[in-house]
Amino acid sequence: MAANFKGLKAVFINCSLKRSSAESHTQKLVEKAANIMRTEGVDVNIIHALEHNIAFGMEKDLSGSGFKDDWPKIQQEILGSDIFVLASPIWLGAKSSVATLVIERMYAYSGDHNEKGQYIYYGKTAGCLITGNEDGVKHCSMDILYAMQHIGYTIPPQADAGWIGEAGPGPSYGDIDEKTGKIYGYDNDFTNRNTTFMAWNLMHCAKMLKDQDGYPALGNVADEWQNVTNAKHQNPEYH
Amino acid sequence: MAANFKGLKAVFINCSLKRSSAESHTQKLVEKAANIMRTEGVDVNIIHALEHNIAFGMEKDLSGSGFKDDWPKIQQEILGSDIFVLASPIWLGAKSSVATLVIERMYAYSGDHNEKGQYIYYGKTAGCLITGNEDGVKHCSMDILYAMQHIGYTIPPQADAGWIGEAGPGPSYGDIDEKTGKIYGYDNDFTNRNTTFMAWNLMHCAKMLKDQDGYPALGNVADEWQNVTNAKHQNPEYH
Amino acid sequence: MAANFKGLKAVFINCSLKRSSAESHTQKLVEKAANIMRTEGVDVNIIHALEHNIAFGMEKDLSGSGFKDDWPKIQQEILGSDIFVLASPIWLGAKSSVATLVIERMYAYSGDHNEKGQYIYYGKTAGCLITGNEDGVKHCSMDILYAMQHIGYTIPPQADAGWIGEAGPGPSYGDIDEKTGKIYGYDNDFTNRNTTFMAWNLMHCAKMLKDQDGYPALGNVADEWQNVTNAKHQNPEYH
Amino acid sequence: MAANFKGLKAVFINCSLKRSSAESHTQKLVEKAANIMRTEGVDVNIIHALEHNIAFGMEKDLSGSGFKDDWPKIQQEILGSDIFVLASPIWLGAKSSVATLVIERMYAYSGDHNEKGQYIYYGKTAGCLITGNEDGVKHCSMDILYAMQHIGYTIPPQADAGWIGEAGPGPSYGDIDEKTGKIYGYDNDFTNRNTTFMAWNLMHCAKMLKDQDGYPALGNVADEWQNVTNAKHQNPEYH
Repeated sequence: MAANFKGLKAVFINCSLKRSSAESHTQKLVEKAANIMRTEGVDVNIIHALEHNIAFGMEKDLSGSGFKDDWPKIQQEILGSDIFVLASPIWLGAKSSVATLVIERMYAYSGDHNEKGQYIYYGKTAGCLITGNEDGVKHCSMDILYAMQHIGYTIPPQADAGWIGEAGPGPSYGDIDEKTGKIYGYDNDFTNRNTTFMAWNLMHCAKMLKDQDGYPALGNVADEWQNVTNAKHQNPEYH
Repeated sequence: MAANFKGLKAVFINCSLKRSSAESHTQKLVEKAANIMRTEGVDVNIIHALEHNIAFGMEKDLSGSGFKDDWPKIQQEILGSDIFVLASPIWLGAKSSVATLVIERMYAYSGDHNEKGQYIYYGKTAGCLITGNEDGVKHCSMDILYAMQHIGYTIPPQADAGWIGEAGPGPSYGDIDEKTGKIYGYDNDFTNRNTTFMAWNLMHCAKMLKDQDGYPALGNVADEWQNVTNAKHQNPEYH
Repeated sequence: MAANFKGLKAVFINCSLKRSSAESHTQKLVEKAANIMRTEGVDVNIIHALEHNIAFGMEKDLSGSGFKDDWPKIQQEILGSDIFVLASPIWLGAKSSVATLVIERMYAYSGDHNEKGQYIYYGKTAGCLITGNEDGVKHCSMDILYAMQHIGYTIPPQADAGWIGEAGPGPSYGDIDEKTGKIYGYDNDFTNRNTTFMAWNLMHCAKMLKDQDGYPALGNVADEWQNVTNAKHQNPEYH
Repeated sequence: MAANFKGLKAVFINCSLKRSSAESHTQKLVEKAANIMRTEGVDVNIIHALEHNIAFGMEKDLSGSGFKDDWPKIQQEILGSDIFVLASPIWLGAKSSVATLVIERMYAYSGDHNEKGQYIYYGKTAGCLITGNEDGVKHCSMDILYAMQHIGYTIPPQADAGWIGEAGPGPSYGDIDEKTGKIYGYDNDFTNRNTTFMAWNLMHCAKMLKDQDGYPALGNVADEWQNVTNAKHQNPEYH
């Protein structure tokens, strides 16, 4: 089936609080999902956010303000990809500060248009991967997937996957139990199934969107919506 | 363009706390979105949840437990539609109890499969409409859209729309200012634009999915995912 | 230490989707917390919401609208208690519809005043207990504790406790493993510690508030706030 | 009444995405709340997070890792204060990346103990202030207040306040309407009342906690909870 997805590009951004991807537990789940896509012919790029300088601020490029800002380069990777996956650890039940920062920087570009006049992220598809030691996969996913669809991404079925252990502090994804040699999370059927579903549905959705050149530019163009059947002119009562 | 969407069916469920749709402010925004779809040829059904008996419980049919349960009939409408829109008022910044109940009842069917072996909501698309007097459109949308994608719906770009007034208690959507005659919300460009975008993107997405008979059954089938490229067998390191 | 907390009253409301408390897994954790309080001299009342008829609607009493409404009686229990604990199962990562309903009904009374002119829930303290099989304790707690403080409750330290298993479907709190006889959750140190902390901090906080007759009525009275140092008259710049 | 609160210390952290407090709309609401406290005798310190170097990472002090980390100094301000207020703008319906970062850094200290053996934030009280142009005060407050109580703060009644405009892009708090000269938000009764209530309830709660030297160390001490009436030994059935 590999040929099917040839030509698709995916970018994963790991928003771990660890400085390097080698220390990140989340990275292990990212690689599993990325390797599914690579095996099926997708061109995958994984970015470890904290290996770059990403400035705070609701601007496209903050490098003029006295410090280095690697964001514009990262943004080009995002805009050049059909699939986007944001990966985040969970801290206190919420997505990481780095994940929030990445979303803010993407948001600063959300008013840009594609060649059809639609918002710039239209025609692309997004999902998320979450790991933690105790609780919060769904809450982090809500936040992330909401933001993605709000700026223009399409969210395919079951686009969130993750791993957490039983309530309370404990091992992280990929940690090895010293006594039994068991690796936490790797054998979790739910995590593996959801990660598989996410990867495949993102590929199916990206291909479907690419094959039909994204959404038709009708009823979703910032400067033209008043010229089609629109809410402003609809009766708020049943007609 | 109406012919384009002929054959599509949409169901809206208004999860207002008002007993009848006539009293519901949310209903006015529902009608605006529904009328866009009707104008474009979609067959639209609007259900006012509290005009039905919907039992609490994580079961498909609770009518055997001593009381009436209208849910199975509503579920048939949902399963027979290509587009689903959940509408909710905001109370204390959260979606209504009725909206939560509707999602729970839909969830009880989420393990069922379509004829391809995928979860039953695959191939359908969903959005949401939210109204309140002060705050919470995005928070309610996060909750609702997350649940929808998690059970198998595809979320198109900008699938949430709504209206709220300035911080603090105040008029609701569609209320009339006695002095000026102004109707609150009807002239809000942001609400009208987002409602228009939501309606059109749901129609585009539904048509796209219907035209290709939903998602290919590969990598997203509960009993078959282990037989394709899957997370269980992927290396958690870069290969 | 039992005497210390004599005279305090607590009400727990279990918002399980199960019709009877005997079937509810959440109930088992509720009893553990309640039994700590009982042992320490607190008068505890546990209400199983679905054993009562609670109507939908943002009204104090809906019994006039053609059906039975048990809420006003439950509200009296809440208003007569120093401590309130809302217990909820998790479904799709969110608090139950029943929990949402209970909060809505409490909210409908939130404009009432105590004898000092403060909102009616001032001087009381609240916490929450959450169980599920996979994920969402913190997200449910956010929603619930936010609502409680917003209507006037004081939230003491670590007022949320709960249990979930590892990611994915699995046993619920109190389920017995047929092979090993192990009871899920009962030996979880994190759950037991947090439940203990929650119960004791609610008792300490309730006693503290009761001993000083709630909050002084200054700066927090709906009709009098403009007469004290208030935001309206403060400089938005540093003075 | 000023003398009443003499001796109390408060720290506000403004988590704006603006580099300097002078550009921040949120700062204007922060000053209003701070000026209430100053007028009543509280010693107030306002920190603008982005005027400091705060490193990413779940560590107490990251200055050893090759870059400057101002966090330990900020943490001393927090630990030396009775009242903590986190202020955040809203972006895409969520609290800012800077707010998330501040909470993460505070969390890294949450395992430390006070002299009674309780977690380090016990005996202190917290609230939040949120501004945005359209939606999300309650959602941001849920996240922030949840985190605060979870690490040991007490949340008094109505500890969240904020301002947003009507749905859609628009003016921010403190912006001036060029035509009318009206300043957005300053006359909003709801915002002013809630800000006043928040400020006063934080002062009342801080004084109450200080007067009784925080919470009694019983049932809430990490190393001693098993020696008091605790959940581990309670019957999960009614006894």
